Amino acid sequence: MKSISIYLPKDEIPRQWYNLGSELAMQPPVDASGKPIGPEALAKIFPMNLIEQEMCPDPWIDIPEPILDIISRWRPSPLRRAVFLEEYLKTPARIYYKDESVSPAGSHKPNSAVAQAWYNKQFGIENIVTETGAGQWGAALSFACKLIGLNCKVYMVRISFDQKPFRKVMMQLWGGTCVASPSTETEVGRRILAQDPNTPGSLGIAIGEAIEAAVTDQSGKTRYSLGSVLNHVMLHQTVIGLEAKKQLKMAGEKLPDVVIGCAGGGSNFAGLAFPFTLDKIHGANIEIIPVEPEACPTITRGPFAYDYGDVGRQTPLIPMYTLGHAFIPRPIHAGGLRYHGMAPMVSQAVQQGLFNPRALRQTECYEAAMLWANTEGPICAPETSHAIAAVIQEAVKAREEQREKVILFNYSGHGLLDLAGYEKFMAGELSDYALPEEDLRASLEPIMSYPKPKQYGT
Amino acid sequence: MKSISIYLPKDEIPRQWYNLGSELAMQPPVDASGKPIGPEALAKIFPMNLIEQEMCPDPWIDIPEPILDIISRWRPSPLRRAVFLEEYLKTPARIYYKDESVSPAGSHKPNSAVAQAWYNKQFGIENIVTETGAGQWGAALSFACKLIGLNCKVYMVRISFDQKPFRKVMMQLWGGTCVASPSTETEVGRRILAQDPNTPGSLGIAIGEAIEAAVTDQSGKTRYSLGSVLNHVMLHQTVIGLEAKKQLKMAGEKLPDVVIGCAGGGSNFAGLAFPFTLDKIHGANIEIIPVEPEACPTITRGPFAYDYGDVGRQTPLIPMYTLGHAFIPRPIHAGGLRYHGMAPMVSQAVQQGLFNPRALRQTECYEAAMLWANTEGPICAPETSHAIAAVIQEAVKAREEQREKVILFNYSGHGLLDLAGYEKFMAGELSDYALPEEDLRASLEPIMSYPKPKQYGT
Repeated sequence: MKSISIYLPKDEIPRQWYNLGSELAMQPPVDASGKPIGPEALAKIFPMNLIEQEMCPDPWIDIPEPILDIISRWRPSPLRRAVFLEEYLKTPARIYYKDESVSPAGSHKPNSAVAQAWYNKQFGIENIVTETGAGQWGAALSFACKLIGLNCKVYMVRISFDQKPFRKVMMQLWGGTCVASPSTETEVGRRILAQDPNTPGSLGIAIGEAIEAAVTDQSGKTRYSLGSVLNHVMLHQTVIGLEAKKQLKMAGEKLPDVVIGCAGGGSNFAGLAFPFTLDKIHGANIEIIPVEPEACPTITRGPFAYDYGDVGRQTPLIPMYTLGHAFIPRPIHAGGLRYHGMAPMVSQAVQQGLFNPRALRQTECYEAAMLWANTEGPICAPETSHAIAAVIQEAVKAREEQREKVILFNYSGHGLLDLAGYEKFMAGELSDYALPEEDLRASLEPIMSYPKPKQYGT
Repeated sequence: MKSISIYLPKDEIPRQWYNLGSELAMQPPVDASGKPIGPEALAKIFPMNLIEQEMCPDPWIDIPEPILDIISRWRPSPLRRAVFLEEYLKTPARIYYKDESVSPAGSHKPNSAVAQAWYNKQFGIENIVTETGAGQWGAALSFACKLIGLNCKVYMVRISFDQKPFRKVMMQLWGGTCVASPSTETEVGRRILAQDPNTPGSLGIAIGEAIEAAVTDQSGKTRYSLGSVLNHVMLHQTVIGLEAKKQLKMAGEKLPDVVIGCAGGGSNFAGLAFPFTLDKIHGANIEIIPVEPEACPTITRGPFAYDYGDVGRQTPLIPMYTLGHAFIPRPIHAGGLRYHGMAPMVSQAVQQGLFNPRALRQTECYEAAMLWANTEGPICAPETSHAIAAVIQEAVKAREEQREKVILFNYSGHGLLDLAGYEKFMAGELSDYALPEEDLRASLEPIMSYPKPKQYGT
């Protein structure tokens, strides 16, 4: 039997989240004048227990038992080895992947959705409002809210709403309400629609709408939730890497030589990579690669700057790699990678030289996804295809160097609700767009006058 | 941790298929005059190695190593316990399910698709033609043909082709070609379209088209493949029940009290149930329930008769429960359960009193599916919802009787490509149609004059 899947027993599920921030020279969010903001500035947006977690300096944070009870429905997720892809590529590399597609919502997103829903419920919140790009986060949060007993409303980026009609049904099925963004329900949405009624939307706009809907609700029982970017989301996802570490050991491996994840806001990448980043900080020789689309090249081409998380400028200024909060990326199919910014923790680690970001074009990612389906079998999400494309590059490099590397990547989600993109790819209708320099400059223009975070020697 | 998933190590994958036919008083297929047909009558339709397996009298048949190598990508499939549904129902029953949704194609179908593709390849065949109802089989066979190196063409029942557009993309992605049936490519298809250009199609028609396409191909390198009904397909699926038996033991259980599977042509039901049927034959007290839709109530209301497997009458006469080969079921969403007949092995076992068939209406099945998604989490296929609805009935009965039953069912596939049905259900647009008596009589009319199989005292 060639196939290799490593299952960790349920009782070996991690009991603590890992906070990489404790090892980094994190810089605080600030207001427009550059003054660090305190917890109270976020109190209308998030419940206080999550704000405390967002700002927590501890390296390890206990996972409450009820959260473990829910995520253990699908966790620990399997670690699998891609033996058929290895064979096809004739590589001496051993390729392992954490299969996060096994969750009911089909991606890693429920790891944080369940935690966030639980903390909100504990705080007495009854309604959660959020945004979603490709729909993975919206589905995951609807799922979590259903199990925990909260109402969930989702603003879904227009282009994905149209490209992926069944994600909406999925949210509905778990009791969520989903509207296309920009919508006419918020001021942010109405303003954008007035400028361009045919806009494909963006995560920045949808976040703006969701925050506005949360903070203008008068009941006091409504809060906003974000599926990536924030520190507490990174924390919640570290179960992925913590499990992977134990599973690699079970597979007879030591530490991986290369760790790869696609990166939109950073959550699936961070989830896998952060526990290994700790090893790297302590001397291990690991190349850690976040992969993003050339259509939205935040870490590879954006500056490390203070910027808003949303187009409505309702968040504090966050220290991160950014393309500018008003940036509206072209409608590539990897909707989850169309965010203008990058998680501050990931950004700070890039600044400190811990990661080697890479940007790839859409069609080479779909080619990788097709090769994956035709060797390993499963159909991956378009976001995940970015990780796979980089894995293939690394495996080919290992072949050329004749090196027995161990490559580990995050299989962040399946593509069963993203088949429209595959259809277009097979019909030769997908563009290979990369962000032009002049568009980047224009989109960064508005943030030039903002306060600046300390730059590190990357 | 409440959740329970039982993983069987890869090297404990079953090495033999189980042939329940060896225990039953099976009756042979016959020609129009009632004369048993020999292997040569099928030689233009199937490769001879599969025909031999179809007629094999042995109880146990070795699984070739290369087939194990492929199916072990996702096998052994997990056995899980539905603890959250149990809690919700306040039942003393313990509900276990075999999770066949974990295969790359999303259902149990690849278990036979891989085996059939392999035997065809061994026999020197280059092209396989098949039909598909909901698209599960077409996707599974495309997947298997891609891995094994064969061309695959799929005739997909029109109504499912329209309801489930992305199944076609899935087949394409694995190299398959998919056309809506009835098509203008075959005589069978043209004849049906001339009668009714707006027909939703049926499995009987699609089978007719696929057989015609296979037998009229002049290369000699083309054969037909069927995803259910036939003896060899039942065999291939028994890995499900054989694994489940070992896994129940690992969970500390003895034999189940109730075994449940949805039944269209019979393959997922048989796969789980046949190994336990052997125990029942040898005295174990197990209630075994195939569940079908009231819109297509083959075993609950059809006669046990000789009938054709397809509307084109190109198959031999097969002894089975049937609604008549020309029966065109209403377009319910469980496309995989819209077949006019039932596997001869399942039919014969029903005749011999081994099973207790049940028919359910579409909306109660969707209600069950919604309850499943809102307690356990995952989204099931509409076919699978029939099994879940019966499981709920049995779990409620166990509560009323205060009996600690063990209920085992086959979670035959996920519903991630069937969300259009859920959308209609939530909008209150699904019909609760049951086949009227007069329609049944009319559809049985043409087969009244056929030879009759021996009836048993059921």
